[in-house]
Amino acid sequence: MKPFSLDRKISALRGAFEAGLAQLVNIPSVSADPAHATDVVRCAESAAAMLTAIGATTEIVATAGYPVVVAMLPSDPSHPTVTIYNHLDVQPAEASEWKSGAPFVFRKIGQCYEGRGTTDDKGPALTALFAARLAREAGIPLNIRFIWELEEEIGSPNFAAFIRARRSRLATDSVVVSDTIWIARDRPAVPYGLRGLQTFLFTLQTHAKDVHSGLTGGVARNPIGELCQLVADCYDAKTGRVKIPGFYDDVQPITAAERAQYRQSGFETARYKKAHELGSIRPHLKNDADVMCAIMARPTFEVHGIVGGYCGSGIKTIVPHRAEVKISTRLVPDQDPKKIARLVRDFVRARNPDVRVAATQTLAPFLGAREGPYADAADRAMKAAFGRAPAFVREGGSIGAVVTMQQALRVPITFLGLSLPEHGYHAPNENFDWGQAAGGMKMFVHYFSEIAKIDPRRPRGR
Amino acid sequence: MKPFSLDRKISALRGAFEAGLAQLVNIPSVSADPAHATDVVRCAESAAAMLTAIGATTEIVATAGYPVVVAMLPSDPSHPTVTIYNHLDVQPAEASEWKSGAPFVFRKIGQCYEGRGTTDDKGPALTALFAARLAREAGIPLNIRFIWELEEEIGSPNFAAFIRARRSRLATDSVVVSDTIWIARDRPAVPYGLRGLQTFLFTLQTHAKDVHSGLTGGVARNPIGELCQLVADCYDAKTGRVKIPGFYDDVQPITAAERAQYRQSGFETARYKKAHELGSIRPHLKNDADVMCAIMARPTFEVHGIVGGYCGSGIKTIVPHRAEVKISTRLVPDQDPKKIARLVRDFVRARNPDVRVAATQTLAPFLGAREGPYADAADRAMKAAFGRAPAFVREGGSIGAVVTMQQALRVPITFLGLSLPEHGYHAPNENFDWGQAAGGMKMFVHYFSEIAKIDPRRPRGR
Repeated sequence: MKPFSLDRKISALRGAFEAGLAQLVNIPSVSADPAHATDVVRCAESAAAMLTAIGATTEIVATAGYPVVVAMLPSDPSHPTVTIYNHLDVQPAEASEWKSGAPFVFRKIGQCYEGRGTTDDKGPALTALFAARLAREAGIPLNIRFIWELEEEIGSPNFAAFIRARRSRLATDSVVVSDTIWIARDRPAVPYGLRGLQTFLFTLQTHAKDVHSGLTGGVARNPIGELCQLVADCYDAKTGRVKIPGFYDDVQPITAAERAQYRQSGFETARYKKAHELGSIRPHLKNDADVMCAIMARPTFEVHGIVGGYCGSGIKTIVPHRAEVKISTRLVPDQDPKKIARLVRDFVRARNPDVRVAATQTLAPFLGAREGPYADAADRAMKAAFGRAPAFVREGGSIGAVVTMQQALRVPITFLGLSLPEHGYHAPNENFDWGQAAGGMKMFVHYFSEIAKIDPRRPRGR
Repeated sequence: MKPFSLDRKISALRGAFEAGLAQLVNIPSVSADPAHATDVVRCAESAAAMLTAIGATTEIVATAGYPVVVAMLPSDPSHPTVTIYNHLDVQPAEASEWKSGAPFVFRKIGQCYEGRGTTDDKGPALTALFAARLAREAGIPLNIRFIWELEEEIGSPNFAAFIRARRSRLATDSVVVSDTIWIARDRPAVPYGLRGLQTFLFTLQTHAKDVHSGLTGGVARNPIGELCQLVADCYDAKTGRVKIPGFYDDVQPITAAERAQYRQSGFETARYKKAHELGSIRPHLKNDADVMCAIMARPTFEVHGIVGGYCGSGIKTIVPHRAEVKISTRLVPDQDPKKIARLVRDFVRARNPDVRVAATQTLAPFLGAREGPYADAADRAMKAAFGRAPAFVREGGSIGAVVTMQQALRVPITFLGLSLPEHGYHAPNENFDWGQAAGGMKMFVHYFSEIAKIDPRRPRGR
């Protein structure tokens, strides 16, 4: 397909794209809010109809929660298969925080599309759909499977069961996940790593109830004081440095090549602080590269909640009887959450054996390929569509569905996100724009064309 | 008055004492609960009538809150004056926690009187009233003034204003406070010291709102982590040892004589733990004397509340934006709360200048005389009444009214409490008993007789 021809075809699809996006955005598919349960299902049905309309074989697969939409276009056993993951459920939205006052009403403002879900992740999902239609029209010899989840914003509680139950029917040569954010508008970003997660609840009870600080203060053990000491023993709050022996043992060092990529990603600390509304950052992070590495490639230890004693207004002179603290560690390759959980337990037991440690949530870190045929395809596709080679970076967050697909499908996973920092991901006035949609369609068509040439060594999907 | 004669007279008063105590206990004078406002006032009126009935000149003095009952018996300018402080308001009570199911109904069970307020402080107040009646009948040349507060259980918010406004009319040669607990039934205790109090609120806000621990974890400052570190910097939670420079500078060392008294006080750590329902005590306190000194004569640093981040069930992977911690220091002579507040502020500013420190409540420590004419009188009176010399000890708690009276009246203050550990002070099934009431009357009569002989160097009360 000639570039000129592709650009013209994409332009011609603009009206259809906007109509489709409007239709999906006007359905408030808030998975976190049971009041929107019928909307979530309705959104799955609308999306399935759109997939059917471009010729895909579509199925709405029931789970223990909300369904998953699965579609395939075409389904030729002589072609390789790529599976594209998006999600169609959205974050909640508070109308009073939106300029429009109506988060679930699609608004077109020039090149810009406003409404909850435009960039996360309905816009990128539809971009991939239209790219698949173009790829089909151009005769690219590739089967494209869509997996559109409707529970991503609530932590994908049924996704692993869905994938495992259908593993054989979901056989694929590669996976694309299109739900990530570039670091800057002028520089595409292709993430290749995600942090994992191991969370803990530390609980210490020293008495049956609160006791009087006059009658017992100085003698009674104080569970808040002891938990504060334990937290201070676990990590240096100023720098974030974890003091638990062995914690950093399996951390893969960042290579010079990775660091060079990060530096060229367009990352600016000032913009990052503004985007995330950060008041103050750790003072030992001296430059952009330090900040990037801290987010992308270093594990963390964070206290994300603490409570104990009297927390109302004024004074209540007690020695508290109980306190608890919620901890989460973000983990990076090759840290093993199970090993980290053991290290933390052992450390706490040695320091304060009365503290109860519960390991509450576990997610492995993910590291994809920065090189090889799929990374090369992503590099060339982004360059062709956006005029600039992408930066290969990592994400600081964790996406459960990615680890699930990696473990079940065992094929390369590539992140081809289209969201920009100014799109207001998870924020009021969330938006997407035609520039990213049109560029995204072009990028996907190029990518499909590139990966159709890769000779997969694995059995092909049907 | 012959001992035999006094014992007989006291026995003869038992019916009247029980009737009076029943009348007061049946009025739920819970100062903390606005629903009981009329009960509190009714209690003041009943008590005033009892004082009038024994011939005292009685007044119900209005304050900005609940009134104070003031009475004088007789009022002879040629006699010295003693002022006896008690309070008639009571702690709240949960009916379901009481064996009787009715905390505000007086019950006589053999020698025992059960009901909220029996031991704290209606029983001791009436004991002093009946002793004053006996002293009057015996012609002891002493004016006895009663000050019965009705806001003690809510921190005496109007007591200082009351005392200051009437200072000249309240002139007295000495004060007795009768609202303390013995350490053991078989050994009277006369406290001569109270700990003071300086409380603080530490607040740290690092962001405008909670931020995402994946996108910002490792970079964003964590206010909970930093406050935990600050608490750990302030004190060693295991031993309670305060690390703030200068904190212990003005602590009066405990003398060998004091320590000997503590050891003979009947204190037993096991009983103390049971009485206060303590689960576990600091492990470095190896024996009863260590524990006693820690409560009575050493200052403390306690975290009495902490809150920050997400405290609900499950996990919310945030870096919190704000945390706060409530601290109280119990102080001992000669520590100055203002100086301690300055040391804490300076220490926090040096460690973490972003933490806001508010000094929220201040109360000076109190140290009375362990020797001299009033202590000797207490010693002899307790011995005469209970057959055993009292232990001179200190109290770990703080009583605002005592410091107020010391500063305004500038006369010796003696603690002549009658409550026993098994009386359930502030607890369900609170009780008092005829043994302590009868012994208390005898003790007070002896004490009045002793102090009537002291030649006061100060102007006498009228």
